[in-house]
Amino acid sequence: MRRSQNRGKLHFFVHGRQSGPKEKKMNLAEALLYALRDRGAGEIFGIPGDFVLPFFRVSEDSGILPVYTLSHEPAVGFAADAAGQVRTTLGVAVVTYGAGALNLVNATACALAEKSPLVVISGAPGVGERVGELLLHHQGKTLESQLQIFREITCAQAVLDDPERAPVEIARVLERCREWSQPVYIELPRDLVDAPCAPVPRLDPTPVDREMVEACADEVLDALLNADAPVLMVGVEVRRYNLEAKVAALARRLSLPVVTSFMGRGLLADADPSPLGTYLGAAGEPAITDLVETSDALLLLGVILSDSNLAASSRRIDLRRTIQALNRRVTLRYHTYAPVPLEALVDALLAHAPTLAPSRRPKVVIPTVEYPRGLLR
Amino acid sequence: MRRSQNRGKLHFFVHGRQSGPKEKKMNLAEALLYALRDRGAGEIFGIPGDFVLPFFRVSEDSGILPVYTLSHEPAVGFAADAAGQVRTTLGVAVVTYGAGALNLVNATACALAEKSPLVVISGAPGVGERVGELLLHHQGKTLESQLQIFREITCAQAVLDDPERAPVEIARVLERCREWSQPVYIELPRDLVDAPCAPVPRLDPTPVDREMVEACADEVLDALLNADAPVLMVGVEVRRYNLEAKVAALARRLSLPVVTSFMGRGLLADADPSPLGTYLGAAGEPAITDLVETSDALLLLGVILSDSNLAASSRRIDLRRTIQALNRRVTLRYHTYAPVPLEALVDALLAHAPTLAPSRRPKVVIPTVEYPRGLLR
Amino acid sequence: MRRSQNRGKLHFFVHGRQSGPKEKKMNLAEALLYALRDRGAGEIFGIPGDFVLPFFRVSEDSGILPVYTLSHEPAVGFAADAAGQVRTTLGVAVVTYGAGALNLVNATACALAEKSPLVVISGAPGVGERVGELLLHHQGKTLESQLQIFREITCAQAVLDDPERAPVEIARVLERCREWSQPVYIELPRDLVDAPCAPVPRLDPTPVDREMVEACADEVLDALLNADAPVLMVGVEVRRYNLEAKVAALARRLSLPVVTSFMGRGLLADADPSPLGTYLGAAGEPAITDLVETSDALLLLGVILSDSNLAASSRRIDLRRTIQALNRRVTLRYHTYAPVPLEALVDALLAHAPTLAPSRRPKVVIPTVEYPRGLLR
Amino acid sequence: MRRSQNRGKLHFFVHGRQSGPKEKKMNLAEALLYALRDRGAGEIFGIPGDFVLPFFRVSEDSGILPVYTLSHEPAVGFAADAAGQVRTTLGVAVVTYGAGALNLVNATACALAEKSPLVVISGAPGVGERVGELLLHHQGKTLESQLQIFREITCAQAVLDDPERAPVEIARVLERCREWSQPVYIELPRDLVDAPCAPVPRLDPTPVDREMVEACADEVLDALLNADAPVLMVGVEVRRYNLEAKVAALARRLSLPVVTSFMGRGLLADADPSPLGTYLGAAGEPAITDLVETSDALLLLGVILSDSNLAASSRRIDLRRTIQALNRRVTLRYHTYAPVPLEALVDALLAHAPTLAPSRRPKVVIPTVEYPRGLLR
Repeated sequence: MRRSQNRGKLHFFVHGRQSGPKEKKMNLAEALLYALRDRGAGEIFGIPGDFVLPFFRVSEDSGILPVYTLSHEPAVGFAADAAGQVRTTLGVAVVTYGAGALNLVNATACALAEKSPLVVISGAPGVGERVGELLLHHQGKTLESQLQIFREITCAQAVLDDPERAPVEIARVLERCREWSQPVYIELPRDLVDAPCAPVPRLDPTPVDREMVEACADEVLDALLNADAPVLMVGVEVRRYNLEAKVAALARRLSLPVVTSFMGRGLLADADPSPLGTYLGAAGEPAITDLVETSDALLLLGVILSDSNLAASSRRIDLRRTIQALNRRVTLRYHTYAPVPLEALVDALLAHAPTLAPSRRPKVVIPTVEYPRGLLR
Repeated sequence: MRRSQNRGKLHFFVHGRQSGPKEKKMNLAEALLYALRDRGAGEIFGIPGDFVLPFFRVSEDSGILPVYTLSHEPAVGFAADAAGQVRTTLGVAVVTYGAGALNLVNATACALAEKSPLVVISGAPGVGERVGELLLHHQGKTLESQLQIFREITCAQAVLDDPERAPVEIARVLERCREWSQPVYIELPRDLVDAPCAPVPRLDPTPVDREMVEACADEVLDALLNADAPVLMVGVEVRRYNLEAKVAALARRLSLPVVTSFMGRGLLADADPSPLGTYLGAAGEPAITDLVETSDALLLLGVILSDSNLAASSRRIDLRRTIQALNRRVTLRYHTYAPVPLEALVDALLAHAPTLAPSRRPKVVIPTVEYPRGLLR
Repeated sequence: MRRSQNRGKLHFFVHGRQSGPKEKKMNLAEALLYALRDRGAGEIFGIPGDFVLPFFRVSEDSGILPVYTLSHEPAVGFAADAAGQVRTTLGVAVVTYGAGALNLVNATACALAEKSPLVVISGAPGVGERVGELLLHHQGKTLESQLQIFREITCAQAVLDDPERAPVEIARVLERCREWSQPVYIELPRDLVDAPCAPVPRLDPTPVDREMVEACADEVLDALLNADAPVLMVGVEVRRYNLEAKVAALARRLSLPVVTSFMGRGLLADADPSPLGTYLGAAGEPAITDLVETSDALLLLGVILSDSNLAASSRRIDLRRTIQALNRRVTLRYHTYAPVPLEALVDALLAHAPTLAPSRRPKVVIPTVEYPRGLLR
Repeated sequence: MRRSQNRGKLHFFVHGRQSGPKEKKMNLAEALLYALRDRGAGEIFGIPGDFVLPFFRVSEDSGILPVYTLSHEPAVGFAADAAGQVRTTLGVAVVTYGAGALNLVNATACALAEKSPLVVISGAPGVGERVGELLLHHQGKTLESQLQIFREITCAQAVLDDPERAPVEIARVLERCREWSQPVYIELPRDLVDAPCAPVPRLDPTPVDREMVEACADEVLDALLNADAPVLMVGVEVRRYNLEAKVAALARRLSLPVVTSFMGRGLLADADPSPLGTYLGAAGEPAITDLVETSDALLLLGVILSDSNLAASSRRIDLRRTIQALNRRVTLRYHTYAPVPLEALVDALLAHAPTLAPSRRPKVVIPTVEYPRGLLR
């Protein structure tokens, strides 16, 4: 049941069956767990340790989300990342302060690179413990060092050191996690786990500039329709934002040949027609490589512009001749539209695209190879 | 052979047997390797990867230091840390940029916590590559993110992006590594590995304020000699600065009962008399726990004041009644002397200490237990 | 009327005569003005300008504090600084964002250097205006630039962008302003001036470590009593913390000859005996210079250790032979006690000091010169 | 005489008439002064004070640039700013550390807002003085505070604490000052003024992406030529980059009606035809206001998008219908080209623009008013 309170932009969820005067108060840990569940998280992965023990206790006692404990933090990070990716929703990794969280740095940076909506929750020394004379093992130079480190590899951060602000802070970082499909960091002092806390509000999504999106979509369509050899390369963001069906429809409508990026291999595997293959540059199928590298209008849709995806090309794709739609921005020829959310762009493309005859589709002869399915990340 | 050039505080090493006109020029990687060797490093541990391949090539071709390659960065970090600790000198870990270095964060934070002189060398994108349009996998938000992260867990950093400044920068961070016995970070862009480079100068050590050190030593001695039950607890810094023999002599001279901290277990094992045991608080041998916790002048010499060493105590030691000598500072009662290097303090204590009869030594009856040797870190 | 609410460490003031159901709600600007008045501010100085007009409107309509407008920001800063210094309480300068606040940088840095409790209040763009496309004139590189600049010259900062947190934030920075006697910075977005706001709580002062203060006082007394030629130099902090009477009593009790620092000239002018003069090094009265520079126990009480006060000395005072009590820390010989508030130290010195015969006082023959009064800062 | 040395991208100036073996070595202050003169500075304005006295001595003894001393730092800043603006070259302000430089903050922020190429040179404590125990009056919290403050209001900074790197550092910041037409900050420790120093090299300008510039110019032309009522508003950058003649030619070629922004009043005053007037929104001449606000292709050329220029409009210009060319970027409709230097854009517009008959020019009837000349900034 959802109740909207008329407090400006905030809409509150109410959890449980009873609302009104008998409504049971929740604590900060429960508010966080409900907020995760409401936004699609299916479970938490983690390793109990000193500073996060109280949060694990609440997690297990409340039963709000299933808890899976592992024995190695990198595994926690990669498991949470994968779980989120497979279900196209938040993945949650819960670790202790210091040695726990610092051992998650590499997996978090990986999630940033792969645009994966990973929520890192780290226990922390209690706000009442922060004045003592003893250092904490693995704390870095100061108690803020861990936060500073995660600033470099996550797109939003919150330290929940004030139960009154915690609901808005949680809402802010989780919303950002979903909108940007990138990891976020939440630090929870262990002595506030049981502090009374209001439910986490649902924030309105960041407003979209519809005029900009439509102008952008029109220019993209114009470039595709006027090209001799347009090609669509799909990348991981298509899956992150759950756009596979729409993108497949768009490709059909425009009779665009489709390939996937290396990191996007497996995408649209169930579409009709399915992608011609995966672009691997000099290391890949020559027909695919040639198709991509000679295209005069290569639409890189949600393709991460990293060395992993594109550096293997021997001739190197001239990015100037491509249309790059990623990370809420679209760049084509010499200019840039921003911010343009991927879903809004795809919707506008579908709304404005004409239906073309399939005869436009190039005759790419790909040797019959069984593409291995189910590997997508 | 060493040649001193009259350039202020810099003394240069010359490597090889021929100096003068035939002197072979070295490149930046060689200058770094010689500087490590000159300061005691015995080998490098690492994993070759994209951005560090040129440095590995020079490392192997030059034969300046043996190269040990492993398959997992945390192992590289812990191996280098251990090698440095066992030989009381620099340990060297060499990794690639991004996924390599970020996977070393936890081991580096551990070295910081344990006061271990670990040198982290990370390859990096070439200075000529930093303007491209492609991201690097695992790079964090920006190319500087990795440096920012290591700022939080090392005591000095250098990016060797200017071959002319590189010798002084290398000297600065390696000297700091030794003086503070804490990890440092060096980033080497891959296109400068072969740049011509002058040898790394030897910097004069940071000057010691002898008057302060002697005043401090006198006050420490005064506290020990006027106490009813003085105790000496030795910690890892005693080994880091290679002071075991001197500290054992000091304990004999003052007839001080000696215990080790948890992290310092194994220290002074070959001294006569050897330590009475290891302080583990409520979890340890009651006679040791009692000795430590009832002391009216507990000298914590090189003992890291962390939860690992001291938090296990049930009664908790009152730090006000202790003398804490660590990290180039000495705190006793309500005041602090800084900076006081540990070796200078021990030397001054030895110079000023009277010789006391062993009768002062308390009768601590410790059940005979074979202490496991060889575990020291 | 004041009411204390039992919410942990927070005690609330209630302003006005009616409490209970009819209690008039206050807005954010009023809450700030009452908080300033409650802590001793006597007026505000300022220049109305775009972003601070709403705050000026409330200031004038509410009549909580008199408002004095001037025509040049540096004059605002120096007037507020002087008003605070003369009455030994908060001085308040109110300016607009950008050109207003940036023109106050020098006066604020001066207040920092002179330990003056100046409260800088800057209007700011509304939180609802911060997304627009137009730059603001004189804004610096970003909207946060002004805050960053004031971080370098104030000891605490608050941006009041959340009316719920504002009371605690205001309390925090004003308390810090008083405890450290240094300037603070408050930024108030213009669209929140009228937001409803709870009264500002009174925070408990930072706890004092009485044991440390007494140990410190004993060591200071010991040094003074065992010296052949102890001297007391008083500086501006003695006035900032309103300690002139206590310090004069201490000087009498210990028969200490008293001089003032350059910046502290005029201090204790009404005491009996009044100071012998002002230390000006080579530029000053030779008898005073000699007295100070040959003292074997020079107590620098609240004397700022800057070039203004001490660099004029030809022989330069050897700080090692002095006792420096400033900025909540005391350094003597080779060690440091911190934190030690000046008032707590003076109280402890008075409590422990014996009464000495005036015969100890040195025979300093100072040529009779009328000291100009009323210049104190 | 200029000599180009074949060291990659660096071209050196040689100053004086004699080169070769007799060439007189210069010191750091002279190298800086020659570099300023070579880049067009006509004089230095300043106030001598402690930390900048050695630089003033060299400035006056060397006679490289005339020295004008004033008595108030804000005046120094505004004078240097104005001198640079009037002659379209670098303006130079020289002040002492602390109270001097901090009193220049507002004038520097003004230069940033107005795109004025102001070079702030601040003396600083010597590198050999930075370890002492005395604070410096007005220094901010640390010796680096002043640099941090100027980072927020200048586009490049250099601390000349290494005479070997100084030439490249000076070249870097002065080139940036010219390319961005924004203030820069140079800090010169007083004990390095006389250090031997190589001449400052001339750096190649940042390369321009000609393809991008031409694509951008074509789109701008397309928008202007297809509009019913195109208008050109010129702003201060046109003068900063000395483009008045070219812009006047462009306006003639395209028969564009020309107005100036408020901050650009006086621009193109000698062109034929001269501007119709200055846009002041609701406060200005109604015919001009109407012309601007009803334009369907308003080209804002070098117009700063600040509240000063545009906020006075009652109807507010819809920036979406404008073409904004400023700060090395061009935004039109919903997208952005960057980086596009203004001069390169104007050149490309002139190269591609057709010549249109003057009949296109709108019949704007402006009441005859003598426009006040000579006020340009």
